[in-house]
Formats: sequence, structure tokens, C-alpha cells
Amino acid sequence: MKLPASVQIKEVGPRDGLQNEEKIVAVQDKVQWINALSQTGLTYIEVSSFVHPKWIPALADAADVFHRIRRKPGVMYTALVPNQRGLERALAADVDEVNIFLSASETHSQKNINKSISEALQTVKEVTTQSLIVGKKVRGYVSTVFGCPYEGRVELSAVERLCEELLASGVYEISLGDTIGVANPMQVESVLTHLLKHFPASAFAMHFHNTYGMALSNILTSLQAGITVFDSSCGGLGGCPYAPGASGNVATNDVVHMLHQMGIKTNINENKLFEASRFIADTLQIKLPSQVYQAGKPKTISR
Amino acid sequence: MKLPASVQIKEVGPRDGLQNEEKIVAVQDKVQWINALSQTGLTYIEVSSFVHPKWIPALADAADVFHRIRRKPGVMYTALVPNQRGLERALAADVDEVNIFLSASETHSQKNINKSISEALQTVKEVTTQSLIVGKKVRGYVSTVFGCPYEGRVELSAVERLCEELLASGVYEISLGDTIGVANPMQVESVLTHLLKHFPASAFAMHFHNTYGMALSNILTSLQAGITVFDSSCGGLGGCPYAPGASGNVATNDVVHMLHQMGIKTNINENKLFEASRFIADTLQIKLPSQVYQAGKPKTISR
Repeated sequence: MKLPASVQIKEVGPRDGLQNEEKIVAVQDKVQWINALSQTGLTYIEVSSFVHPKWIPALADAADVFHRIRRKPGVMYTALVPNQRGLERALAADVDEVNIFLSASETHSQKNINKSISEALQTVKEVTTQSLIVGKKVRGYVSTVFGCPYEGRVELSAVERLCEELLASGVYEISLGDTIGVANPMQVESVLTHLLKHFPASAFAMHFHNTYGMALSNILTSLQAGITVFDSSCGGLGGCPYAPGASGNVATNDVVHMLHQMGIKTNINENKLFEASRFIADTLQIKLPSQVYQAGKPKTISR
Repeated sequence: MKLPASVQIKEVGPRDGLQNEEKIVAVQDKVQWINALSQTGLTYIEVSSFVHPKWIPALADAADVFHRIRRKPGVMYTALVPNQRGLERALAADVDEVNIFLSASETHSQKNINKSISEALQTVKEVTTQSLIVGKKVRGYVSTVFGCPYEGRVELSAVERLCEELLASGVYEISLGDTIGVANPMQVESVLTHLLKHFPASAFAMHFHNTYGMALSNILTSLQAGITVFDSSCGGLGGCPYAPGASGNVATNDVVHMLHQMGIKTNINENKLFEASRFIADTLQIKLPSQVYQAGKPKTISR
């Protein structure tokens, strides 16, 4: 089994997790949670989203959260930015980098942001150019890469074309999203084999949801394909709007634990991650989906 | 990715699942559940255990359950048998085959059955010989293969020696058990690479628990090593006595779904499995750990 020596985890819980939770978390609790996440060894935290507050009320306090968090040197604090207006708010909040997003499925794009893919791409390119001009790196999400809740199958050629456009416009990394958690390891291998003929592995991160329990298997497959950056959510926070009751993002705890057990470095302290998870579980008063969290404080089991 | 065309699932929920649940299920409910499982396409159901009722009160009704289930032709109805007395009860109940068990860890063996490994092996050999004489096939479980709750690391040489002894005594298949769910994919690859130098892949099944969320990843790795038989539990029923709150056996639902999504045949109908899971969830009034079950009735998502 060929695996990388180290992996970077990009924590998306405060954004992708919270936007899918029923309860809205108070600003001071978000701040305390993000400060706790900053102490775990994570080097990248997606703090919030600057989409219009009416679309995602749970993240309407993005500017306030950015203003109040204690930034730890060496940690990138980033946000989702949908358009020009969002970029202005994000820059005013002094985000460390800008995350743009696009869907690989026409119907999902229409339903999600009320734009066609090509309209969305136009906006994304403008946001990217402006971000780069002011010295902010840009990361891109491509969603529904492995399946769309409306269309089912998504054409790999559409994904490839979007990757080309995004990289050409200056996006430094593309996070390939399994928005509804339907990807399976064989499909992940097939998609990555195709894309890595055209682009370097370092151009990609993987963003898996654990809806059907396959997220860690998909990560394992991605590692073997050479991917070394993964998005995940503290405790497995978040749900799936298309499958009520289902899990959300793969849990940072579970990813980090599997990586560490296989000798792959992440720089993340599992005990501190457990404490940060407990804080948000207590705040939301929910049972987090993370298996590692549910199993209790991590113990070192020698083998 | 080299994967088998088909896989056999051995359903252990009625035994390994129920023995780890807090509530005791009434005989008529067990019977109704096992009858429902028989209709899913499963070809192997471990119905109960003939250990002394004082050790596992939840399965004290083994004989009664065997007597009352409706046996479907083509399905094997089996039970765990610890010793001579258990074998007599199992044969009286007309089990289709006999499942014996051993631990690869000395301390776990002592704490679990109050016998050293060599004492346990002696008993197992006697039970195996007697079973074969009366025409019953014998399957063996070796537990704590990937880690012991007391000793931590388990020597692979001890596992190898037990496999040799069991196969020589006439056991047709050994289920390698990750009793506490600590195995990781790299370790699974390493253990199987070692064992498959000495024994054929057809001599093994894998028995994973999902304590830390790695069960499906471990199954994926085992598939690539050539293993085609897996133990799992309907809905993910069962817990872990060493990690309260943690998941138990990997869920049949999740295993079957992943296999089907990768084009691997199991003969199991996911909708019928969903219904059987719902029955036992309602009976026990618990939330089953299976991600696929939680996501709701399986839909076919074309890709």
C-alpha cells in the first residue's frame, strides 16, 4: 500500500458543518469553538461563508466571527465567497484566502445558486482575479463530482473542463466534492485516474461526505492515488439536505485517527480535537456522528 | 483496483449483535427478525450461541429460537459452540454448522472464557472432531487478531499458529476477528500479506467492528487481498464492551451497499435488508449505527 508520509486536513466544520445543522450557534460559541480548533494543530480552518445572509442564516454572522476569533500564526482562516459583494465582505473581514465554488451538475447549479454553470464560472473567474490582485490565494470547490441529487450521474468531462478553467484562472487547489456522499472507492479511483492524467495530484483536495459510510474508504483510495489534502468536519458535524437523518461531512476525528494509525502525520492532536468536538456537541446538544468521538477519548493502543 | 465479482456475507447480528445489546429480545421477536433476514437473500445466518446461559443471558433461548425459526432452503443457520455441552445442545437444535472460537491473545482468552489458549484449543479440537463425525462443517473465529483490549499488540505468529492448528483439525474457514475495532487498512494488508503466504485466501473470512469507523476501509483492503467472505451485523447492531458508546459489528447494510455500488454481487436485496433492520430497531427501540440505514430507504442513484 503506497501512502503519503503526511496529509493536510482542511477543517470545514464551522462552515459546511454548521450550515447544515438545524440550530444556529451564537457568535461567542463559534468563536470559542474556532479558537479551540486553532489549538489542535489544524493549519486550515474554513471559518464561515460570505453568501447573502438570507440564503444561509446560520452563517449571517461571518464578519463578526472573523473579527472576534483569535488567529493563531500558521493557521489559515478562510471563507466561502460566492460573488463580488461577498468578496468585499470577505476582504473587509481580512480572510486569509478565498474559497470559491461551482457545481459540476447543471441542475444542481441552478437549484443551489440560481445560475447556470457558465454564469457561475464567469462570476468565479472575476472573484478569483480580484482576489489574486489583492494578494489572496483562491481555492475552488467543485461540487457533485460523484453524483447529483437531481441528475444522478455527472459527466467526468464536465468536471475536467471546470478544473481546467479554474486552474487556468489562478485557483491553486480544487476540492473535489462528493456533495451527497454517494461516491464509492472504485469510482474515486476511476475519477482520479482520469483527472491525474491531465493535472498534478497537488492540484486536488478531496471533500467527502459520509452519507453511506464510505468516506474513509474513499479517502484511503485517494491517498493511494497520491492525494494529500482532505476536507473534513470536526465531529462529523453537518447533515445532508437530500437525505434527512444522514451524516454530513466525514469527521475530522475519524480521518485523523485512521491516518495516525497508519503512520501518516497530520500535526493534529487527537485529544485536543476530542475536546473541541465535545464543546460543539455540548453547544448544539447533539450526538456527533464521528465514530472515534463516540468511542471516547482516544487511547493509544500499541500494536 | 482488483476486486472479486461476488462476496458472501455471513450475518452475525442475531448472535454477535444481540449479545452486546443491553436489552434482551423476546424469542418471538428474534424468530420474526431471523425469518425476515432469511428473505433478504442472505445465505448464512449465525442464529445464536450455545455458551452457558449464565454467561450470555441474552442468548439463553438459543434452542427455542432454532426450534421456531422457518428455515429457508439454501440458507445456513449456525451457532457458536464453546464446548462439549454446547455441542450437544447445538446438535439437538439441529444447527447447520458449528462455529468454534479462540482468542489470539492469552489475556483475552483467560478473561473471556477462563482458559489459556492451549486449553481452549484442546476443547475446540474435540468439538471440531465430534462435529465432523456427525457431518457438521466447522467454522472458526479467531478473535483479537488486530489488537487486544488487555495486551494491546497481538503477535502475528500466534495467529498463524492458531490458523494452522484449526485448519489441520478440519475447520473449513477461519474468521479473523478485529474484536475491538482497532484494525487499520495498512495493518490489514500486512496481516493478510503474511497469512496468505501460508494459507489460501479461501481459508479466511474477515470480521470487522466499526468502533473507530475503519471497518469498510478494512473490508476494501481485504477485498483487494482476495478475501471474499465477510461477517457483518444487520443495521450495525451490537456494541463494544471495551468502549461504551462505540459501534459494534460493521453493518451488513453498509457493507452490502458499498459492494453493490462497486458492482460486486452479494445476492442480498437492500430494501428487504432495510425492512429487517427497521424491525429490530423498532423492537430494541434504538438508533442503529448503520449509515445506510440512517440515510433512509436505499435509492438507486445512477452514475
